[in-house]
Formats: sequence, C-alpha cells, structure tokens
Amino acid sequence: MKNINNSKLKIIPLGGLEQIGMNITAFEFEDSIIVVDCGLSFPEDDMLGIDLVIPDVTYLKDNISKVKGFVITHGHEDHIGALPYVLREVNVPIYATKLTMGIIENKLKEHNLMRSTKRKVIKHGQSINLGCFRIEFIRTNHSIADAAALAIYSPAGIVLHTGDFKVDYTPVFGDTIDLQRLGEIGKKGVLAVMCDSTNAERKGFTMSEKTVGITFDNIFAEHKDNRIIIATFASNVDRVQQIINSAYKYGRKVVVEGRSMVSIITIAQELGYLNVPDKTLIDIEQLKNYPEEQTVIITTGSQGESMAALSRMASSIHKKVTIMPGDLIIFSSNPIPGNEKAVSNVINQLIAKGADVIFQDTHVSGHACQEEIKLIYSLLKPKYAIPVHGEFRHLKAQANLVKELGIPKENVFIMRSGDVLELDEHQAAITDRVQTGAILVDGLGVGDVGNIVLRDRQRLAEDGILIVVLTLEKYGNQVLAGPDIVSRGFVYVRESEDLMEEAKRIVSDALDECMDKNITDWGKIKNIMKDSLSDFLWKRTKRNPMILPIIMEV
Amino acid sequence: MKNINNSKLKIIPLGGLEQIGMNITAFEFEDSIIVVDCGLSFPEDDMLGIDLVIPDVTYLKDNISKVKGFVITHGHEDHIGALPYVLREVNVPIYATKLTMGIIENKLKEHNLMRSTKRKVIKHGQSINLGCFRIEFIRTNHSIADAAALAIYSPAGIVLHTGDFKVDYTPVFGDTIDLQRLGEIGKKGVLAVMCDSTNAERKGFTMSEKTVGITFDNIFAEHKDNRIIIATFASNVDRVQQIINSAYKYGRKVVVEGRSMVSIITIAQELGYLNVPDKTLIDIEQLKNYPEEQTVIITTGSQGESMAALSRMASSIHKKVTIMPGDLIIFSSNPIPGNEKAVSNVINQLIAKGADVIFQDTHVSGHACQEEIKLIYSLLKPKYAIPVHGEFRHLKAQANLVKELGIPKENVFIMRSGDVLELDEHQAAITDRVQTGAILVDGLGVGDVGNIVLRDRQRLAEDGILIVVLTLEKYGNQVLAGPDIVSRGFVYVRESEDLMEEAKRIVSDALDECMDKNITDWGKIKNIMKDSLSDFLWKRTKRNPMILPIIMEV
Repeated sequence: MKNINNSKLKIIPLGGLEQIGMNITAFEFEDSIIVVDCGLSFPEDDMLGIDLVIPDVTYLKDNISKVKGFVITHGHEDHIGALPYVLREVNVPIYATKLTMGIIENKLKEHNLMRSTKRKVIKHGQSINLGCFRIEFIRTNHSIADAAALAIYSPAGIVLHTGDFKVDYTPVFGDTIDLQRLGEIGKKGVLAVMCDSTNAERKGFTMSEKTVGITFDNIFAEHKDNRIIIATFASNVDRVQQIINSAYKYGRKVVVEGRSMVSIITIAQELGYLNVPDKTLIDIEQLKNYPEEQTVIITTGSQGESMAALSRMASSIHKKVTIMPGDLIIFSSNPIPGNEKAVSNVINQLIAKGADVIFQDTHVSGHACQEEIKLIYSLLKPKYAIPVHGEFRHLKAQANLVKELGIPKENVFIMRSGDVLELDEHQAAITDRVQTGAILVDGLGVGDVGNIVLRDRQRLAEDGILIVVLTLEKYGNQVLAGPDIVSRGFVYVRESEDLMEEAKRIVSDALDECMDKNITDWGKIKNIMKDSLSDFLWKRTKRNPMILPIIMEV
Repeated sequence: MKNINNSKLKIIPLGGLEQIGMNITAFEFEDSIIVVDCGLSFPEDDMLGIDLVIPDVTYLKDNISKVKGFVITHGHEDHIGALPYVLREVNVPIYATKLTMGIIENKLKEHNLMRSTKRKVIKHGQSINLGCFRIEFIRTNHSIADAAALAIYSPAGIVLHTGDFKVDYTPVFGDTIDLQRLGEIGKKGVLAVMCDSTNAERKGFTMSEKTVGITFDNIFAEHKDNRIIIATFASNVDRVQQIINSAYKYGRKVVVEGRSMVSIITIAQELGYLNVPDKTLIDIEQLKNYPEEQTVIITTGSQGESMAALSRMASSIHKKVTIMPGDLIIFSSNPIPGNEKAVSNVINQLIAKGADVIFQDTHVSGHACQEEIKLIYSLLKPKYAIPVHGEFRHLKAQANLVKELGIPKENVFIMRSGDVLELDEHQAAITDRVQTGAILVDGLGVGDVGNIVLRDRQRLAEDGILIVVLTLEKYGNQVLAGPDIVSRGFVYVRESEDLMEEAKRIVSDALDECMDKNITDWGKIKNIMKDSLSDFLWKRTKRNPMILPIIMEV
C-alpha cells in the first residue's frame, strides 16, 4: 500500500454512538466518498410523538460531487432505514447483496423512489470500484441472510468493516462466514478493523441459529395437542425457515401474520431465501379450516410493540386470532433493552387468557461474542481498531478485548458521530469534526420538530396546559371579555370547580391590577397574569402546567 | 378450628395484580377486618405526570367500624408507601416490627401524621389480638431487615401470609427465617398460604446475602488504588452493612449519599440494625480530606433514576462528587423491569467519563426461588394456596409449582384486586367483588387526575395542541377578532410559517362558511372549525394534535 501525495483516509461516522441504530459512516479519500450503511434509529423515551430518527447528512450534501454511493452491509432497519429520506438529498447509487437489495427496494417502492434510485446487486466475493475505493463484499453470518462484511481498499490501506455479524459454523441458509478470505486479506496487511461490538461484553461464542431449530423440534414434539404461536423478528428469515421445517415435520400448516413479517417473508421467498414445502403456508383466512393443533402462526410482536399482531391477540383486538386456553406461545426473541416491560405485559395478558408461554432456549443472538471478536481480529491483525455498533459500554468492552490481543491503546479509537479520523499506515488521529445530528421524523414532517417543540410536549405531558384568554379594546385598555380559563390535561375540571374558580379570580385580580396601574404593554400583562396564576397553582397543587395567555383585541 | 355460625373468612386483595406494588389485603371475619400492608405503586409509562399510585380503599371506609388495624410485613414502599394517604381516611392503629415501624414513622413525620396515628411495635414470635383475629409475627429473611410472615388465626382457620421473603441460612443481620415455627404451625393445620411469587419462575434457591459481601471483599482487594462508588437500594441495610465491613477491613472511609439512603441508614443505625465501627462513616463534606483510594461512596441511583445521586454524578450535575478516570462504580442491584434502559444510559455515561463499572455477582434477590417456595409449602401443607406478590406470570408460575406439590388445581386461587374469596375448611370460592382501583397522586392532588386528563396528556404529548381563538359580537354573529391560531408542541412555528398561515386560512374559510350559512350555535361553529383544521393538518402532516377552539363574546 503506497500513500499517494501523503493523503490520508478519512473515516467519519455520521451517526452511531450518540444515536444507537443510526449506522452511517463516510469513507473519504481525496475526491472520493463512499458511505457504508444508512440506518435509522427509534425515538428515545423523551422524544414524545416522534416516529423515527434519521441522520443529518449535511456533510454529504456539502460534498455531494465526491459521493460515489451507498454500500450496504445488510437489510436491518438500523442499516437501511434512513435511505428513503437521505436519498432525496443525496441521490447516489446503492450497492448491496440480493436479499438486502430486495428489502431496500420494498422501501423505495413505498416512498416512490424506485425510478430515481440507481441500484446494483453485488454477490459475496465480488468487488466494485467507486472513485479511488474498491469495495469487496465478504460473506458473514447474522440474524438476517445475505449479510456482508466490506473490505474497503483505499490508497491508504485496507479497512475491514464487519457489518453486524456472528460466526455460525452451521448456518441455516448459505455458508459460514468466509473466514478463509478474511485470513487472506489479513495476510495482505489490514490498516483498520471496524468490528461489531453489540455482544462485546459477553464471554464465549454465540450459539448457532441451528440450535433454535432443535428446540423448536422438541417443543413441537411435546405439544402435539396445542395450537402454537411463535413471535419473532420479521427479518429473521432463517428463524422462520426453521419454524416452517418443524411445522412440516409435525404436519402443521403455517400462517404468517403481521405486516412487516408478511412483507419480508414474501421477498425472501421470491428471491429464494426461504424453502417452503408445498401447501405448508396457508392464508390466515384458511385457519378455520384446520384443527388448531395442526396449525402454527408466526407473528410479529416479539418486542411487545403495542400495535403488532401478537399484542393485538393478547389484548383481544386481533380480528382473526383469538387466544384460547391451551394455546402455546413461544417468544423466539430476547427483549431489546427498553422493551422488557412491554414484553412482560404481553406475556401476562397471554397467561391470563390461559395460554402457556415459552421464552427459554428459543432465541440466539445475531451478534458475535468475545471469542468471535477475537477470532476476527486474529485473522485480520489490523494496525488500528475502531469498535463500532453498540453503546459506549459495548465499544469500550471491545476496546478492552482488543488491547488484550496486543493492539496498543493509542491505536484503538472509540469514535463519536462527526469525528473525523485521519489515518494511514504511519499514524491515525481524530483531526476534525463535521456537522452531524439526529433529525426527528414525526408523521410527514422531517426536521420540523426540534428541541423547543419536544420541551413543550414534555411539559404538556407532565402537567397539561391552561389557556387564559381575554379580549381588550383596541387603542383603549378596556377589558371587553374574559379573562376565561380553559384547561386540558391539568385536572378533571368537574371535580375541581373550586380550584378553577379561584384560579380565575387570581387572574382577574392580576388583570385589574394591570388596568389600575395603566399597564398597556400586552407582553407585560400576559406575564403578570401568567406568573400570578403559576404561583397560585404551584402553591395549591405542586404542579407546573404550561400557562398560555392569549389576548385578542376588538 | 371450629367454624362459628357457619361464617367464613373473607380474603379481599384491594390492590396487587392489576397494579403491581399496591400490596394491601383485607381479611374479614364477621365484624372484624384487619388489613395486611398498605403499599403504593409507581406510575406506568402511560400515566403521564403522575407521581404515585395508591389504592382505592372505599371498601375499608364503608366498613370503617370493623377495621381493627394495619398489620405490616416489612418496610418497603410497595408495602407501606400508601399509609400516609390511606390513614387520612382509615385512621386505625399500625402494627409492625421495630425497623419497619421506624421507616413508617419517618413517613408519618413528613406527612405530619405522628400524633394522629396509633402505633405498636411487635417482636417476632409475638402475637396481637385484633377483633376475632390473632396475628403472630414470624421472622423471615428479605432484602430489608425485620421482615415478618404473618400467621393469621381466624375462627375459620389459619392463613399464613409470607410477606416478601427468602430463606437465608446465613443472614447478615439476625437469624434465619423461623422454619421451626412454620413447621409447628403447619402441624396444627393451615387453611391457606399466601406466598410471595416474585421469583416463582426461577429454579433453585436464592443465594445468601452474605455471598455479596464476599464479592465486595474481593473487589476491594483488587482495587486498592481506586475510589469505589457503590449504588444499591436505599433500604437494603444488610447490603450497606457489608459495604461498611469491607470498607473497614480495607481501611476506607464511607460516605452515604442520596436523600432516601441517608434517611434509612440513619434510622437503621439509631435502632441498632447497623453496626458501624468508629470513625468509618464520614460526611460528604469531609471527602476532600482523604485520598480517593481510601474512600467508598454508597449512593442511591442503582435504578438509573434521573434525579438520584449516581445519575447526577454520571451527568456531571452532582455538586459534591465528580466522576474521574480510575473510579470504580459497582451496581449492587439488578434493574427492576422497565428500568433497564435508564440503568444502561447511566453506565454509558460513567464509562464515557473513564470509570470502570462492575455489575456482576454484586447482587442477590430478596425473594424466594422455586425450591424455597416448595420448602414453605412443605412445612405448612395448607389446604388452599393463594399466590401473591407478582405479575400474572409469576402468580401462575407459583400456581404450577403448587400443583406439583399435590394441592389440587381447584384449591389454588389467583385473585384479582377486589375479588372476595370466602373460605373455610370445607370450601373456598370467589363469591363477590368490592370496589377497588388505582388513585393517581400528582403533586398535592390525590385523585383529581383521572382517565380523561391522562388521555388529554397523552394526546398533548404525542402531537401538541393548537388553540383557535376568536371574538364574536354578543347577540349578533359578527366576528370581531380572529380567528387566531396559537400552537404549542406541534411544530416549530418559525420554520413552518407557511403551514400555519395556510391553517389560519382554512379556519377562516370554515368560519366564513358558518357565517354565510347563519350558523349561530357556538358548539357547531367550534366543531366545524375543529374538523376542517384537523382534516387539513392530517393531510399535510399525518399528525393529530389536540385542537381547542375558544370563542369569546363582546
């Protein structure tokens, strides 16, 4: 690897650590930029009313002439979800493996972006040239098929980005992660590895996906008299494959339920990633034609999402499926941190309806544990390590692992969004920062809800709002109507009439005082009313609702 | 046990299953009622702005002449927290062990209820007579000292209520749960057991509290050069004792930080439940006088509570403690379901500041696992089993265990709040329901926030509010001012001027139409404006803010 003009490779995460899920990283060398992944993140608890969070790609827009394309590692939302939004501003080609592209195209169709977006399907082992970069797609294993690691060849050296991966020696579909090729590339000399940190706190090895299939077989064998309902992640096609295998073996028909599940299974089947024996899949409408114990329902809702199919079944608002005593429900998933309570609520509802619930040994992670991470580093032996994909604690855990493997501390970089890491074979340092951030999507609005609006929503959520309205005489200062008080989300007015009457008197007194003192400035009048009402309410209720004075003039 | 007049014992949970934490159960026989525990529950995610939830005790108020007293099993919030609220309406004596009473009295002082509340401290092994009941306090082990099981002797038979318990053969303070006495009572014949179900899904035995002390010793030995900060539950006095023991052994001074921690430790020390070597505890102000590696800070915040001391340290807003690289932070706790993400956020902040974080082998549960539950049932051999304390899934898990022990299915009762279980040695059945419910406490308001207010808060939180205000001519129908639109929590108005202008035009047009059609009914005018604005906003933004039309007249 020879360094041309002393130029260095720049690696710039545009999301990630501050907003988990928003995986998007720019690689820049002179006049070329490529972007690895383009994920979205789901709102934090304090982002009230927000649907999605997408990355601020100002840096890409400002350098649009350099940007050669998006290179995608796999088809999960946290790696592809922001594409439909970002493509509107950064319209460059997308490169991905077949199933990943199928899932992306499904999104593009929904957003009416198929025509305007160039796409190219890449096979594992194949390379593409983008500007001064060459990118090789390398087979990995993950909880979705067709995942790829990327070997990014730049004039400054090779960077290996693992994407999300695990090492599965007995994968359900396709082959084991291409360890040989990783070794070969390692032999050439690798500048940096960017490795999945999700499970870096966990010792040992992640179990093979196949082990779940064995558990399913055992459960199916033991529950021949029960209907079986299995909730799992929509995108875990291999999991669905194994459920179908067990169902077929035990003579059951399979129904797939839940919008995202149906959509991904359809794509996977069309593209040949799912092998369904004839007459095994049936439509939900046909369920009634089969005895319950000869059916399996595969459904969304494994995370307790309130509108997902399983949650609707649990709370008796699903139109087609009614939970009955004797039903066996399997959670083939672990709760994602933050969803534990929602999942437990659904389990409680199901058990209260007489169902049995199983959630042990029915899931394996899609991410590498410590021994797998060590294996990858030992094959690649990079000069620099850049742990990616995880919370700070996970990146730090990988950093600690990597030090044990002999990579010196100063060659390990935990990067924040917007950090610019400049590196070549001689040195590496964070030299700059670019603009990044989280753009909030609420309904059709992209970026029109910011901190001020969120703060208002939080205050409204906490204690509600009181609106003080009055009409003043134009030019004069006579009160023609009001002040009236209307409240929402504060107290149940019918039961708090005295309080509201007194509040009105407080505001009237404050207003009278303004009139007496000949205060004519509306801003001042509003503030005086607001402050006196706020003081009164705090004293009486220890609450702090939003108070909004409105003055009309006639 | 002979049944007088064919009367039966009634057991009535007034909280619990529907509102986890609100542990309060009435036992009624003819003209006597006793109440076991009086806990509060913390708000669910959808109870916006609510501070606490307390039980509706209408049934006790309606039968106040029968109510003989509150009998308390232990000093945790979910067993005593509602007392200050409920005592105002149900002013009967409280019976509890010494430490439990100390913690209750601390609450009564805060609420100015000491004078008006009769209290009696009971020792383990002692009994009290309340109406036709006799209640014996029996020593148990739990994550707070002085916990008791209650043997409730009624004319219909003995009910054994375990309270929250575990079996700890090597407790830090006091003795092992009084298994001999439980065996003795079992021999007499027990009508029903009400047993803690919290860990009924977990196999095996809960580890002794002492094992955590051994872990602390090892950690202290390995980290002689670091400051140590340990977060745990304020009420876990035994845990604090063990930290103090390790600190003393390794020559460190101990600071206790966080309001609730300081308060409980003070009580425990005064009452002799904590053994502190001279000059070991120091004030937080003295911290600066000692080298960091000779100090330990025991703090609140183990659940990631945003205003607790550890969270304030993690986010650099704690006034006295600044986290530094090299600090070792121990989470001596497991996240309570629902708190996982908050805890993880605090851990990330701490690690980002260069601290090391340990959260393995530093906590044991205070609740019995399956083998302990089986032990209790085997000592007591009751006719009926009433699993208590847990979510539906936990109660169901205990019900399943109990069936394995030979108690027939029809003798196992999973009770909902308000269910009336009538039982004697011949039969048991749920025969009635009484009023129960969750009363929401928001600031000083008890019960003035109900479902309507919560629904409003949810809608306000989701999409904000638009207020449409106009002034009409009295008696006529002339628009004198407006319509104006003011919004909060909807969009950032400065960046959405066009949308708001258009919205105003939509409302004006709707109003003009009303005027043209001579519609004078204010309700109709409001609805027409509201609907047209709502349709417009949904179409343009796919959001559904609250719309509040206000008409003034002059």
